[in-house]
Amino acid sequence: MTHPSAELAGFAAGLTYEDIPAHVARRTEDLLLDTLASELAGSSARPVQSMAKLADTMGPASGPSENLVTRKTTSPLFAALVNAAAAHMVEQDDVHNGSVFHPAAVVFPPAIATAQALGRSGKELITACVAGYEVGIRVGEFLGRSHYKVFHTTGTAGALASAAAVGRLLGLDEEQMLNAFGSAGTQAAGLWEFLRDAADSKQLHTGKAAVNGMIAAYLAQDGFTGARHILEGPQGMAAGMSTDADVRKLTDGLGTRWTVVESSFKFHASCRHTHPAADALLKLVLSRDLKAQDIASVTAHVHQGAIDVLGPVVNPTSVHQSKFSMGTVLAMIALHRRAGLPEFDAALGDAQVEAFRDRVSMVLDDEVDTAYPNRWIGKVTVRTTDGQEYFERVDEPKGDPGNTLSREEIETKAYALGTYRNAATHEEVEALIQRVWALADASLVGPFIQ
Amino acid sequence: MTHPSAELAGFAAGLTYEDIPAHVARRTEDLLLDTLASELAGSSARPVQSMAKLADTMGPASGPSENLVTRKTTSPLFAALVNAAAAHMVEQDDVHNGSVFHPAAVVFPPAIATAQALGRSGKELITACVAGYEVGIRVGEFLGRSHYKVFHTTGTAGALASAAAVGRLLGLDEEQMLNAFGSAGTQAAGLWEFLRDAADSKQLHTGKAAVNGMIAAYLAQDGFTGARHILEGPQGMAAGMSTDADVRKLTDGLGTRWTVVESSFKFHASCRHTHPAADALLKLVLSRDLKAQDIASVTAHVHQGAIDVLGPVVNPTSVHQSKFSMGTVLAMIALHRRAGLPEFDAALGDAQVEAFRDRVSMVLDDEVDTAYPNRWIGKVTVRTTDGQEYFERVDEPKGDPGNTLSREEIETKAYALGTYRNAATHEEVEALIQRVWALADASLVGPFIQ
Repeated sequence: MTHPSAELAGFAAGLTYEDIPAHVARRTEDLLLDTLASELAGSSARPVQSMAKLADTMGPASGPSENLVTRKTTSPLFAALVNAAAAHMVEQDDVHNGSVFHPAAVVFPPAIATAQALGRSGKELITACVAGYEVGIRVGEFLGRSHYKVFHTTGTAGALASAAAVGRLLGLDEEQMLNAFGSAGTQAAGLWEFLRDAADSKQLHTGKAAVNGMIAAYLAQDGFTGARHILEGPQGMAAGMSTDADVRKLTDGLGTRWTVVESSFKFHASCRHTHPAADALLKLVLSRDLKAQDIASVTAHVHQGAIDVLGPVVNPTSVHQSKFSMGTVLAMIALHRRAGLPEFDAALGDAQVEAFRDRVSMVLDDEVDTAYPNRWIGKVTVRTTDGQEYFERVDEPKGDPGNTLSREEIETKAYALGTYRNAATHEEVEALIQRVWALADASLVGPFIQ
Repeated sequence: MTHPSAELAGFAAGLTYEDIPAHVARRTEDLLLDTLASELAGSSARPVQSMAKLADTMGPASGPSENLVTRKTTSPLFAALVNAAAAHMVEQDDVHNGSVFHPAAVVFPPAIATAQALGRSGKELITACVAGYEVGIRVGEFLGRSHYKVFHTTGTAGALASAAAVGRLLGLDEEQMLNAFGSAGTQAAGLWEFLRDAADSKQLHTGKAAVNGMIAAYLAQDGFTGARHILEGPQGMAAGMSTDADVRKLTDGLGTRWTVVESSFKFHASCRHTHPAADALLKLVLSRDLKAQDIASVTAHVHQGAIDVLGPVVNPTSVHQSKFSMGTVLAMIALHRRAGLPEFDAALGDAQVEAFRDRVSMVLDDEVDTAYPNRWIGKVTVRTTDGQEYFERVDEPKGDPGNTLSREEIETKAYALGTYRNAATHEEVEALIQRVWALADASLVGPFIQ
């Protein structure tokens, strides 16, 4: 077995904690905390509550894994389903630029649920999560930009990310891991069509990606087989769902390039495609001391992906959909200099936000589009009511690897997310933070909130 | 709401038993029996046992729904998962020609599990299953031939079929049903790549289609929303997974054309694409009294879909894969005049079968290809060892609507399937048959095997 999928499977199956550089392991802990806090922040949302209710109807009433939404225990499958749905709800979980993929939401929930069920150590959990990131991100990069035009890569590549993480915890060998990839890839799904209607599918995509990968891994452990070339074969994922797949991406820098540290924290509580322009506008309004009422129009110079994802959102009708509205996000920056969770809750139906929103437009920009997805450049042109025109740019949005968050900033964000709508108390988040920072020394991954 | 998806959703939500012509209801019972017997026949197979084990690990230990594989009860989700996997295992469940879709495996298991959980009547179950057929088949026809080249339509359209059937039992209104379609479509998956490796994915596809549709319907009942144009929207299923989708197919003859009665019973225990040629060869060897050793070569004149699906299977390495080998199936016809379950078990590794297999080839035939998928014409040319050349054709394979099975033949098939590998006793199958024939009078859908 020497083909790229097998090589990737072998890497995921064979990865050990000792292989992982210390700064990669620490960043994995950072991302894990960011994810658990995101799960808490999303736990009270209606779509997440619907999925929790489904889990109550269909799943066992107790089990070895922690459901952070219901604060009850259940089987790993339902803990992964519900927690992964919650993790992506408030759009504050991480994003990997090159793959345009949200790894945290589909890697940590199934890995944590499995580690809790199997009694694995903190180091084993970290190792599995790194395997999930390295696989999922490479699959996302492999599927390419054409895939992302119609498919939600977090749903599709996410199934393989989950399979790799859960498969590592199950101790799959290379052959079994390749079978898990096959079963995960043939379940991979997720379409962007829901954005147009502000529908709830994004939570379904992360929840199901986590579950699909977990099913694939557990089945593979029992000898259930999958296609050996599910990614690149003539009737595989790329054949059906991409026109620009590049098989070299699957093994790019395996073992030396650590994609975990390439992933970006989200500073604003909105779709990542809005962040570069938001940061550029923030820089401009701060440096020029512009008020919202001074601004006659904002032009965001963007990549095609931003137009594909945000373009359909003209008149957002839910808080969640407003996170995909460039106009809404830039209005919040102009009005409040922030686009955090409380600002989003207040923005829906706010007349000032709506008035500003209609003054924002997006245009395709060659430089930004060419740099994307490796670099997410933000450029805005602002015209003021007194006829001035200003231009601003940022080359790396806040939260990106070159402009990342410190552990102190991550903790601050975790408190804000974890206590959002009273999901958890300040003390619970404090204890959660301590558990995550001590994870590598934990002989058993226990519950994170108890 | 007047677009085609909404019209289809409205039809499924509003269908009543009184709307359904009697011969359609009776055929639904025929197909239901055929499916339950198929589930029993597949229950002992390794991939199905793996899925049953997964259900034991992840699902509740008991519940309102019958798991025919374990003979235990569980929640509707896991009953649907395992029974739907079993239903398709021995390739004896039905097929709808025009959509190239196996509706029974993805409609009956989730519908039965839900009806048992909700305490629905036999008439309500029949109505829901008809809704599932009418939706799933139209979605399959809509997705078209380009979709089927890479995607396993039973997995993709199957999610919508399951959503319609379960949604009808849940009493979804048109709006909720459309949301269920959205959530089902965005989970829809299944790739043909597994065929090349004789992998186990086909069972995963039916099991997961049943589950995905059920999840979509239960979530919709709770207010969870999905894309309103998941089928035909610019980032929907057709946009991502088809190049020849035809939106008119979604509502073709709704309420007057009953696709349930267009579905074909499978007479041979093999992939449907082998049946037309198998029937033509059977007709020829019987009429000319040819023995296998008299035959130097067989050329099957086929449609492109047969080449796409069967072409990769050159040297089958499992009983299941041999059902996708045209050479194996025609060898069994030549050698035994039958291609049933026992013949398949005996054929793998049989030197006579392998020798004959290498004398079989497929060629694309214009007439057959043009008629497909509405008509599945079988044409073979046989060259004998003494230099003669014979040609034979069948215009409608055994089991097709114009050449269907009688209730007596369906019962005979059910006994053969149900007692295969001692899955059930003759008496249990007898009782099962009686329950199904009395289904329309049952005030409660109870267990079928008790």
